[in-house]
Amino acid sequence: MSEILRVGIAGLGTVGASVVRLLDSRRNALALRTGRAIQVTAVSARDKTRDRGIDLSGVEWYDDPVALAASPDIDLFVELIGGEGGAAKAAVETALATGKHVVTANKALIAHHGRALAELAEEKGVALAFEASVAGGIPIIKTVKEGLAGNTITRIYGILNGTCNYILTRMEKDGDSFSKCLKQAQKLGYAEADPTFDIGGYDTAHKLTILTALAFGVNVNIDAVYVEGIDKIDAIDIRMARKLGYRIKLLGVAERSDSGIEQRVHPTMVPSDSPIARIMGVTNAVTIQSDAVDELTLSGPGAGGDATASAVLADIADVASGAVGRPFGPPVATLGRAIQEPIKRHEGGYYIRLTVADKPGAAASIVTSFADMEISLESIIQNRSESAAQLDPAGRSGAPVPVVVITYATTEAALRKAVDKVIAEGYVVEKPQVIRIERE
Amino acid sequence: MSEILRVGIAGLGTVGASVVRLLDSRRNALALRTGRAIQVTAVSARDKTRDRGIDLSGVEWYDDPVALAASPDIDLFVELIGGEGGAAKAAVETALATGKHVVTANKALIAHHGRALAELAEEKGVALAFEASVAGGIPIIKTVKEGLAGNTITRIYGILNGTCNYILTRMEKDGDSFSKCLKQAQKLGYAEADPTFDIGGYDTAHKLTILTALAFGVNVNIDAVYVEGIDKIDAIDIRMARKLGYRIKLLGVAERSDSGIEQRVHPTMVPSDSPIARIMGVTNAVTIQSDAVDELTLSGPGAGGDATASAVLADIADVASGAVGRPFGPPVATLGRAIQEPIKRHEGGYYIRLTVADKPGAAASIVTSFADMEISLESIIQNRSESAAQLDPAGRSGAPVPVVVITYATTEAALRKAVDKVIAEGYVVEKPQVIRIERE
Repeated sequence: MSEILRVGIAGLGTVGASVVRLLDSRRNALALRTGRAIQVTAVSARDKTRDRGIDLSGVEWYDDPVALAASPDIDLFVELIGGEGGAAKAAVETALATGKHVVTANKALIAHHGRALAELAEEKGVALAFEASVAGGIPIIKTVKEGLAGNTITRIYGILNGTCNYILTRMEKDGDSFSKCLKQAQKLGYAEADPTFDIGGYDTAHKLTILTALAFGVNVNIDAVYVEGIDKIDAIDIRMARKLGYRIKLLGVAERSDSGIEQRVHPTMVPSDSPIARIMGVTNAVTIQSDAVDELTLSGPGAGGDATASAVLADIADVASGAVGRPFGPPVATLGRAIQEPIKRHEGGYYIRLTVADKPGAAASIVTSFADMEISLESIIQNRSESAAQLDPAGRSGAPVPVVVITYATTEAALRKAVDKVIAEGYVVEKPQVIRIERE
Repeated sequence: MSEILRVGIAGLGTVGASVVRLLDSRRNALALRTGRAIQVTAVSARDKTRDRGIDLSGVEWYDDPVALAASPDIDLFVELIGGEGGAAKAAVETALATGKHVVTANKALIAHHGRALAELAEEKGVALAFEASVAGGIPIIKTVKEGLAGNTITRIYGILNGTCNYILTRMEKDGDSFSKCLKQAQKLGYAEADPTFDIGGYDTAHKLTILTALAFGVNVNIDAVYVEGIDKIDAIDIRMARKLGYRIKLLGVAERSDSGIEQRVHPTMVPSDSPIARIMGVTNAVTIQSDAVDELTLSGPGAGGDATASAVLADIADVASGAVGRPFGPPVATLGRAIQEPIKRHEGGYYIRLTVADKPGAAASIVTSFADMEISLESIIQNRSESAAQLDPAGRSGAPVPVVVITYATTEAALRKAVDKVIAEGYVVEKPQVIRIERE
């Protein structure tokens, strides 16, 4: 190992260019802090000719990221290519196998291959660090892994996708439909042309399984996460949530249940005075509940070149300082197995919006169906003004009416049975909307 | 150094007992995470016979903490005695001088002697860690020192004293006076019998100077902090703040100014929709503004045995993992000197409450006095209903009236001159209240 920490960076998009720039501007401060000079000595990207606004003179260029990863002239390989497999995976494997430290911002890579890559890193005694893979500029991985090392964590949940939170915020502020707000997000560059990965909840699921591994001492397993996106959220749900004292957020939640670790991503009603409810726009936030600290919340930018680069730099600084821990804390061989908890076993409160024909017996059917399943109702609201506005401009009687039910804690299995019974009795004219409630 | 990390703990109050208990309950998890067994092998406290609800069998007892610190049978000394000098200082010096790692929760010790102690730790190549000294269970030191290592921090501010925040929260919720809410806090154990250290802002100042050192690369200097407490805040100020869209919080603020680092502790008006304004009760919160991450906020418990013990355990776990950095990041010899910035140079918005005789000319005197100093006013409110309720139950004309002025950014020097001019013109019948405003 040389005196200087020689860094090779693969991928020079927004984040990569920010890493190069920040490493340069913080050169002296970082050297003083870590006791070692840090220098970008080699890079790899697709297009050598593109102007990225950074000075790459004296920096070796590689067309092939795997060749860069294999080079004996670097000590640390920064992977900013992205994607769960392909060049990113091959390059990281090569870097680790040849005894280099690896820093990556790649959530898909860690969520899918974290275990195998961590084993390789442990075997070689090098770092595999991925602070930038979750919640951008929020140092949540360091917090869970090191800052709360003395805690037994019981639940961790957060807003981990800025695109979804931006859309939900606009839906509430402007009263617009999901599709209109999605288009707005796309126009502003907050959502991709194909937004499925974000709005479908998959991005959040990738991040959640990484947090779960660190918080609960189990291996990453993206298949263990139950996932629902936000595309079925209607403007009326946003309005009803507000009326009832809630906000709708796409949350990733991991918590210890009786039988294991529950990992789920879905639209969630949170009390509007809770810290997480107040996170608006593209901001991310994570709350950790644990025995010793009780509750800790971090909020900040979840994306952006500089914010993500900040996380990459923190990982690089740790390596330069000699703080090379194991990727997930304990050896991966000792980590438990995360399996998907059946969502039907989930226990909690629910918001159910039923669109029913406005005829005698509908309310009675709903109340008795829930009572039969021993589900206690916090409130039931039949909102004729919503029906008039939404479904029947003439406001004539007999038009379908939205009925919203808020339940106290019950199991999802019981809830689904109650809803099916109301449907079977013939009052429901539209697929019911079911949103889980997360209370303190 | 032995295979096991042998820990000696001096001070077995609430925090000390929690540390012993948590180290025991997290024994296996910590060993897996750090790669090393951690064991409390010796303790020191005043009263050997007291029942602390912890098992100390097989643990060596010292009556003298300095003798414990000097013992060759420990690798790490945990100082939980408290106090800026005396036994705490002597014991920490002894532990460092004899080559032991030190973990402490003692803000006064670090704020007053941090530089000298850090020099000793650096010389001996051992840890001097003090996560528990600031904001209890919030891992703010790790966040500033490591998590944001790639950032240039421009401002850091926070609610660092739960006692003050509890009192201010009650004043707002119940509409009660400062002294009544202080008594309530004392009754609940949130405030000491002699509350000066908390309500006078000194506790916050100690924590702030530690954060300043880490955030701005200067040495700790408690004398560089400008300090005002909350004891002059009146119920009417709380009401007026709310009306104007603000809340009053005791903030510690450190920021880079043209001439150096401004460090100040004082009651502050913050916009009521800002994250920091929403922190209620004994909770603490810190916001860090920096170039790369922009804005990061952490909130959680600032005190309590288990929460503080969590921070102590995180420091112990770092030592066990071999992550022994320098106490303040860069070598203390390279840190700049922090000197007190004259508060008169402070620039910001102000809330001024003037109690004036209700006679012609008062408002004109105020407006022209501020205009003469080129201070722009955001609003000026003459509140006769407040005067009636507060000062003159009969509501008769001629009674003193509170006039509240909110200014745009100005210097404190100009502001003071304007206020003095209003006083000189004879309209003011009570000492004016001046509260600084902190905007984004």
